[in-house]
Amino acid sequence: MNIPVRDREEDYVNVNPLQTGGRTYPDTRKTITSYVDGYSVCDWCVGALDKTDKPPIQEFLADVSKFLGMDHTLPTNGCRESKYAVMHAITKPGDTIVVDGNAHYSTFVAAERAGLKVLKVPSGGAPKYLIDPEGYRNVIEVVKHDTGTPPKLAVLTHVDGSYGNVVDAKQVGEICRENGTPLLLNTAYSSGRMPVDGKKLNADFIAASGHKSWAAGGGNIGLLSTTEEWGEKIFSHSKDYTIKPLEILGCSTRGSAMVALMASYPYVKERVKEWGREVENSRWLVEKLEDVGINALGEKPRNHDLTFFNSQTLFEISEKHQKKRYFLYHELKNRGILGIKSGLTKNFKMSTFRLNRQQVEYVAWAFEDIMEKNPK
Amino acid sequence: MNIPVRDREEDYVNVNPLQTGGRTYPDTRKTITSYVDGYSVCDWCVGALDKTDKPPIQEFLADVSKFLGMDHTLPTNGCRESKYAVMHAITKPGDTIVVDGNAHYSTFVAAERAGLKVLKVPSGGAPKYLIDPEGYRNVIEVVKHDTGTPPKLAVLTHVDGSYGNVVDAKQVGEICRENGTPLLLNTAYSSGRMPVDGKKLNADFIAASGHKSWAAGGGNIGLLSTTEEWGEKIFSHSKDYTIKPLEILGCSTRGSAMVALMASYPYVKERVKEWGREVENSRWLVEKLEDVGINALGEKPRNHDLTFFNSQTLFEISEKHQKKRYFLYHELKNRGILGIKSGLTKNFKMSTFRLNRQQVEYVAWAFEDIMEKNPK
Repeated sequence: MNIPVRDREEDYVNVNPLQTGGRTYPDTRKTITSYVDGYSVCDWCVGALDKTDKPPIQEFLADVSKFLGMDHTLPTNGCRESKYAVMHAITKPGDTIVVDGNAHYSTFVAAERAGLKVLKVPSGGAPKYLIDPEGYRNVIEVVKHDTGTPPKLAVLTHVDGSYGNVVDAKQVGEICRENGTPLLLNTAYSSGRMPVDGKKLNADFIAASGHKSWAAGGGNIGLLSTTEEWGEKIFSHSKDYTIKPLEILGCSTRGSAMVALMASYPYVKERVKEWGREVENSRWLVEKLEDVGINALGEKPRNHDLTFFNSQTLFEISEKHQKKRYFLYHELKNRGILGIKSGLTKNFKMSTFRLNRQQVEYVAWAFEDIMEKNPK
Repeated sequence: MNIPVRDREEDYVNVNPLQTGGRTYPDTRKTITSYVDGYSVCDWCVGALDKTDKPPIQEFLADVSKFLGMDHTLPTNGCRESKYAVMHAITKPGDTIVVDGNAHYSTFVAAERAGLKVLKVPSGGAPKYLIDPEGYRNVIEVVKHDTGTPPKLAVLTHVDGSYGNVVDAKQVGEICRENGTPLLLNTAYSSGRMPVDGKKLNADFIAASGHKSWAAGGGNIGLLSTTEEWGEKIFSHSKDYTIKPLEILGCSTRGSAMVALMASYPYVKERVKEWGREVENSRWLVEKLEDVGINALGEKPRNHDLTFFNSQTLFEISEKHQKKRYFLYHELKNRGILGIKSGLTKNFKMSTFRLNRQQVEYVAWAFEDIMEKNPK
């Protein structure tokens, strides 16, 4: 059983949207090395992970609540686990919830595990795939008509992982409030990358991904933040083990992932201030690629580093190329770029997050060069 | 926010039972460093973590199934998450399950989260705290009498984390089979340390802890193994995302914890063969400490590296000592030993797992020396 050495962050420009926000900082790596062994954050256990002071987990969680504009935060095993925790805590099997049509598969899988019926707020379809906040009003009305009560929960993917569209969460939240439906905001692709203020966005719950957007790495970890109003219900404790929150089975991330998230946090707080630069880089690349026949889908202009591209030209080149549909992967790899799924040419995603302008220019050059050297 | 450097594995002899089986190997640390970033095991995603071939996760899981004497295995976020997954998959809220009285709090918290009623099979109490397998027959009869059906699930803590007693799982499993109740074996303190053959022990499900007993480190990770008979129910897939197992929300450990477990696995397979040496070391230490008034509870002779000690003598010393109840912690720390909770003198736990004989002798000497230099 051979585990290959992984070198794509060191030796390549990586544009995989799943990975650009989860790259660790040198300080994070040092901290992970120090806490690499099992149950390393439990040296000074006081009975619960979220109350631990050494390392200062309790202090960190309190600061995160402020950073996200919420009141209470718990560490979870990941963003999807945060979503399941909310669904499990405030719904019953058979309940209906409302979810945007661009939601990640894990939202639907979490709802299925929780025994919930899901009604989708469809996107506007190609080429922009926009989620209209007013769509929530329509679907909530359908639920009210069909079941006699408003949906028990609405889930909105703040920025979806397919098209990188930034949805107007505030407006969705207002519609939910009007109907008495709490809003869970999935910020897997937003918090940790761009500023997110939960209360300003009318969110009742925020699910965040440490390893996707908070540079946590070192295992999977997420965050679940909520308001004073919902805190008691979402973070209820075991009746016999009164210090142990039920939805994280007492203690969730009992290892280096916890300190990894904490070690990256000062850098994360700084980088969200540079979100304007990230959007500029993304727009700049889109403009360059559209010039050579690689077109961006999703909202325009782009407001996020993740972009879905479509290119009939690259597809036609692949048909004539010796390597067929694998040509783009190999051509990019030969130029030191990885992160587009091998075998894709017509439709693929890229993220420019945390690339500097020189690297973004290099990516643009690589595509231009590939198209010049491989005429269709 | 200061995250202190953690040095207790490098600079001390660590006897914390929570940590001795989760110490990483040098190869594991190298692998973690290579896969330290977020979603690092997803470079060659084929749609599901458990089907991934690069790194060879699928091959690893198949081998683990053989190693544990089971048929199917999935990675989970931890042992407690494995237990919750089984409970959630095969019971309904309101069902009754049977659990041994020495079970870890997370078993009860998982059952509470799943909405289950728990009937305990009590231990025989002090000083041995033995779980009599026949106790399962009695409690199963109670459940049958009260509810009209056998319990939906029985949970047995193979080796408990308080007294380190090794229970005769095979006999418990036989009693469960006779009654049509499936058995979940919590091997947090057994598999990865000592040989465990699930089918021989009549287990239907095995929950294992990567970071507690498989030297996984690098975040929290567990395993859930089951038989052909139960595989389909426990590992059922989403109806819309047919490659995604519901109980792990599609993909569980999407980071370095996964490869950490894999990198340690060859060493783990070897070390369980040396279990006889571990038991010898534990017994040797118990004999030496009992000679100076530090007495072991639990079964005798000891069959596990984790032992609960009781000492009236150490307690009496502490009452006269300047540092009061913190004296033992400081005296041991001064001698390069950590892992007994600060403030404990009368009752505490220790583990000799993976200490060599010289280190075990050193621990014995330290206690003798402390008692000699601090007469009561």
